[in-house]
Formats: sequence, C-alpha cells, structure tokens
Amino acid sequence: MEFEFSVTQVHNKARTGRLVTPHGTVETPLFMPVGTQATVKGISNRELVEVGSQIVLANTYHLMLRPGPERIAGLGGLHGFTGYTGPWLTDSGGFQVMSLGHRRVISEEGVTFSNHLNGDRTLLTPERSITVQEQLGADIIMAFDECPPYPAERDYLEASLERTLRWLERSLAAKTRSDQALFGITQGGVEPDLRRASTLETIKFDLPGYAIGGLAVGEPKEKMIQAVELSTDILPPDRPRYLMGVGHPEDLVAGVALGVDMFDCVYPTRTGRFGYALVDEGRLNLSSARYKDDPEPIDPACDCYACQNHSRAYLTHLVRAGEMLGLRLLSLHNLRYLHRLMEEARRAIATGSYGEFARRFAARRWPAGEPAWFRQAMERAGVW
Amino acid sequence: MEFEFSVTQVHNKARTGRLVTPHGTVETPLFMPVGTQATVKGISNRELVEVGSQIVLANTYHLMLRPGPERIAGLGGLHGFTGYTGPWLTDSGGFQVMSLGHRRVISEEGVTFSNHLNGDRTLLTPERSITVQEQLGADIIMAFDECPPYPAERDYLEASLERTLRWLERSLAAKTRSDQALFGITQGGVEPDLRRASTLETIKFDLPGYAIGGLAVGEPKEKMIQAVELSTDILPPDRPRYLMGVGHPEDLVAGVALGVDMFDCVYPTRTGRFGYALVDEGRLNLSSARYKDDPEPIDPACDCYACQNHSRAYLTHLVRAGEMLGLRLLSLHNLRYLHRLMEEARRAIATGSYGEFARRFAARRWPAGEPAWFRQAMERAGVW
Repeated sequence: MEFEFSVTQVHNKARTGRLVTPHGTVETPLFMPVGTQATVKGISNRELVEVGSQIVLANTYHLMLRPGPERIAGLGGLHGFTGYTGPWLTDSGGFQVMSLGHRRVISEEGVTFSNHLNGDRTLLTPERSITVQEQLGADIIMAFDECPPYPAERDYLEASLERTLRWLERSLAAKTRSDQALFGITQGGVEPDLRRASTLETIKFDLPGYAIGGLAVGEPKEKMIQAVELSTDILPPDRPRYLMGVGHPEDLVAGVALGVDMFDCVYPTRTGRFGYALVDEGRLNLSSARYKDDPEPIDPACDCYACQNHSRAYLTHLVRAGEMLGLRLLSLHNLRYLHRLMEEARRAIATGSYGEFARRFAARRWPAGEPAWFRQAMERAGVW
Repeated sequence: MEFEFSVTQVHNKARTGRLVTPHGTVETPLFMPVGTQATVKGISNRELVEVGSQIVLANTYHLMLRPGPERIAGLGGLHGFTGYTGPWLTDSGGFQVMSLGHRRVISEEGVTFSNHLNGDRTLLTPERSITVQEQLGADIIMAFDECPPYPAERDYLEASLERTLRWLERSLAAKTRSDQALFGITQGGVEPDLRRASTLETIKFDLPGYAIGGLAVGEPKEKMIQAVELSTDILPPDRPRYLMGVGHPEDLVAGVALGVDMFDCVYPTRTGRFGYALVDEGRLNLSSARYKDDPEPIDPACDCYACQNHSRAYLTHLVRAGEMLGLRLLSLHNLRYLHRLMEEARRAIATGSYGEFARRFAARRWPAGEPAWFRQAMERAGVW
C-alpha cells in the first residue's frame, strides 16, 4: 500500500497518527511549510529536514504558470526538480485563483482568470488542476474547489459548496495516477449547517483524506473553531484531516485538540521575512531597536541553527540592514518553532497530557489569561 | 606569537604560505569573501566553513554607520557579534568613502563625506579608522588610505600616495591593540614609478603584511598586471601580499603566479545575486531561458551543495522566479568555485606545476586562445 493512514494514539478528540506515502512516512499532527514556487522561501532542502519538516506543500497555480508543469514532469516531478525527495502535497489552485487571479469568472466549467504574472487569460478546471497535479507528481493532491471569501451570502456559499462537490466528482474522474492520494476539501464557510452538509457529502466519496477548506479567511476565531469542531466530529476517524491555510501557533494547538492532523501556512516564513521571530509569548519584532544590544538568542530553549548560533542583536542588525541572511534565519527559526510545537503536541497526546500542554502554552502566550475562543476550544475538545 | 607568516613553498614568483592569526591559521594563496555588513550576503557561518572560506572581510565604513562599532565591541567584536569565530579582516573605510560617500572633501586630516544611509556629514581620519577597527576586533586591520579613481592625473596620484603614507604613519601611531596585525596599503595607480615609490616607502614601516591597493578600478588588465608584478618584486618575501578588490578567476590565477597571497572581492556573491554561476568556461547566466530544462548541475565536478543537489533547470527557475534560495545557492557555488581554484593553485605551487595548472585554466577559459595580458603575466611570472 503506497498510501496508508493509521491513528496511533487517541486522547479525547486529539490523536497522533502515521501517514505512509510513496516518499516516506510522516508523524501527525504536523505542520507543512509552504514552498509556493517549489521552494520554501530562503530555506534549503537540508534545512527543511533539519528543522523537522515532514511534508512540503507546493502551489499548483504558481507552478502551472512558471516554470510550467510539463517542464517539472520532464525533470522528475517536484521530487526530481527540487531535489527534495520527501513527501510533497500540492494544492489545487482553487484558493490562489481567488486570491491572486484578476478578473475572475466562475462558471460550472471552472474559473477563468488573468494570471498575476503576465495577465494572460487562463481557465482552470477540475480536470486541468488534476492533470497539472499529476505532472507535478506530489504524494498528496487536492480536489479543485472554490474557496469563497468571508463574509459571503448564504446563497452564494450554498451554490459554491455544491459546485465544489461536483468539481470533486470531476477531479476524481480525471485522476489517472494510482500513486497519488487525492484529498477532498469541505467548504460551507462558517455556517454550521452548510459546513455540516458539505462535510457529509464529501465523505461519501470515501477518500484517503479530507481537508477543511475556506477557513482562516478573516472570520472570528470562535466561528473557525466551531466549524473545525463540527467537521472533525463528522470526518471519519481513520482518515487524515487537514486544516488548510492555518499556521498561527494558537490555532495549531486548538486544531490539534479538536482532532486535526495536518496544517499548512505561509505564516512562519512570511512573518520571518517581515522580521518577526515566533516565541511562546507571541512574536519578537527583530526590526525594532529594542533588541539592538540583546546578546540572548531568540529563544534559549530552541535548538534551531539561528538560536544555537546567533544573538537577537545580530539578527536585528541583519534585519535592519536588509540582509538576506536575517530573513533566512528567522524563517528557519519560525519553521522549527512550529515543528517543535507539533512534536510537543504529539508527545502530549501520547502521554495523555494534552490539557497540561495546552495550559503551559496558554500561560506563556497569554499571561493575563487566554481568550474565550481558546478556552472554549479546549473545553469542547475535552482536554480542559 | 599571535600573528606569523611563513612561506611554505616557492615556485618561481608564486608561493604557498601559512598565516597564523589569533583566530586560526590559514593557507595562502587564498580568496576572502566579503561580509560587507558583517554577513557574506545570504551565506551562513557554517556554509562559509563548508565552502572553504578561511578569512572573512568586513567593511569598516558600513559597520561604523550601522550597527555602530561600540555596539559590536560590546557584543564581543566581529567574532562574538556574528558568531563567525575564524579570522576576520577589516578594511579601513578608505575605499568606501570614495565609492559610497557623497560630497567628499579630502583634506590632510581625513575625508569628510555624507554617508549613504542618512546623509549625515562624517569625518573619517586614520585615527578614527583605527579606533573603529579596534572596536570591530578583526585579526587583520588595514591602514587608512586614499584610493584614487582611474584614470587620475599624475600630480593627483603623487600627492595622494604621499598623503596615504602620512596616513599610514598616523594609523600606526593610533594603534593600541597588540592582537591585531596592521597591513599597509600601497597606491600610485598604474604609473610604474609612482607605484614603485609608494611600495618602497610603505615597506620602510616594516609591517606584518602589505596590500596592493587602488587596482581593479577600471584600468586595462595589462597595466594592473604590470603594477602587481613590480609590487611583488619589491615587497618583502616574508610578508603576506594582499591584492585588494580583485576576485575574477583569471585575475586570481595571474595574481598568484606573480606572488600575491590574498585576494578579496564581492564578485562571487554579487554575480551570484545577479543570476550568474562561475565555471571554468566563464559564467553561466542562469536567468536565461537556455537552462530551463537542463538537468545537469552547474558543474558536475564541483563539490558544493548546489552542484551536489540541484540542476541548472531548478536554479534557473529559482532565479527567474526571484526566489532567495536561487541567489543563495549561486553565491555559495561561486564562493566554492574561487576557493577550489585557490586550493588547486596551492597544490600546483606545492608540486611545481603552476604552469600546467594555468594552462589548463586558460584552455577552458579561452578555448580560442588566452588574451595577451594573461600570457604576459605567466611569462613574466616564469611559469610559461
């Protein structure tokens, strides 16, 4: 079996698991760094391995436009092209078409848009998305979906989730490779009945994994948590659950409590490029003058290369001087931060101490008391 | 003895040597990467070690302005501040004042200029340069000199080299630390008699090392080579000779033949950031469409991380997509290229085969025949 998921430990709603893919086995829950253009910005393959990345995500939309899927296929798919030989996941392009495409026209057939590189009109359909994803050759590929904006009208959400279901059917029909696992994506915004309906219909396809889509697009945290909870209550326990586009540490801790297995987000690398370092207390702004003379590392407890070798003062100098190395080191640290968080979460689940883990996290993150949404998530997950 | 230079092998004018510094011993001839702002752009400390860098250069002018020498001193000098614990060399700021400062006024006291960061008027004198270099704490520091433009009038060159000699005297008088070696810098443009006079006067100071300054500023190669040859003929054989700002591979091969021990240049990292990879044949332009489908590494014979792990096609994609990793990998390769070239030069000197080494180099670099200046350099060096 090239693709197999097994839950290894369960602790209330949270669980650890093991996901076997053609390019390696990974431990869940996990965070996936985003390699938009077939590179996690500024980070080398060996650094990805070193910080504990297990799967890397690449964007179908970007790679379809440049350097083109035929080219990547000819060079051995993402694995051969990039030299990163561990597991890859590609998204479907559905989200980027909406966030980066201009003059979008959504029809039953697909989405026509002017691309962000040269403005050419392009049609992306479920069939085209799957063809491109087969050329890219990731281990996990995603069904082509529509990700509605927040807020959106109920009528629109309803029509959109139904179209996404029909697109899922077409995505499956277009699939020809047996060595790639196709995940379906649920939608429905944060309307509980629509999210529930989308999830119930999606699981009828009996897929190797399911993604919760359309969240972290501007809705209040309470609504996101509610949508995640009702999704994981419905999704089959023996399939991996992937909460798309979510990467803030507190969202990972809450999501894992509610039974999510996989996350991805540009957050750690993007915020690193903006000069921020993730710490338990939140973020350090290393472009501020505050750390100019600070000889301490970002986090004395962190085992990343940046923390083991450099002071906040030096990183601040690099960031303020616009030096590439600063952005690189902060991105590296931030990835390690999220991977360490997920390693700790896995240990906490395995030892039945997720509640304590989440309490320690919350006490550092919010010394004056955690927000209501986080407490509710922990309570609904049964760990507090 | 904290600072000691010994010539280990001599082959005609070329020689290998060993330079002991307070932070490590290095093998000459060598190339020094430039860490302008206390970072070799995009390259981590461990990568510097991995590619074979032995000494790193930092710019007094830049670091004086940002983050400030007191700050670096407070954080343990360049070694402590950057975490790069091998040998460092700082220049005097003399060259940058001329190339980056605005509204320069040169007087006997020093150079007043508007800095390139915020336009503030600043006075850099020999005393100030040495004080800053003592705060930065490099193993090798440079006398404050004036680097005239090319072409320059004889009268100007003559006045300038005499001022540079007086500034050398003041640099030496200002020096208080015994654990830093101060090198003098010769000037005189490409006027043989002026270059000779500058060199003869400079060596009277009996310094631990000498730099040949004011070359590679636009003069024809023939004139540069002539100036180098007459310099190395005069400079004492038991002191290291540093040809400043020179980093093109062919210039290194010629310079070593003529008895130069040390070189520095931003060339390998800068041309890397422009999308070029150094190879024996010259440079590959990886931003061109030509390599879009090329599965070969930059150079199959190269042992650098980029060549061991990535194709030209992938690097071209990274460069064309504006990805940081591309610039990083090309800079890494280019540094390794120059360090390998110097390793081969050292072996060739040690085995008395520098002529053959230079012939192999020239045959690849110029398949249609080497230029006259290179042939003349080899003939004058006695290796051809």
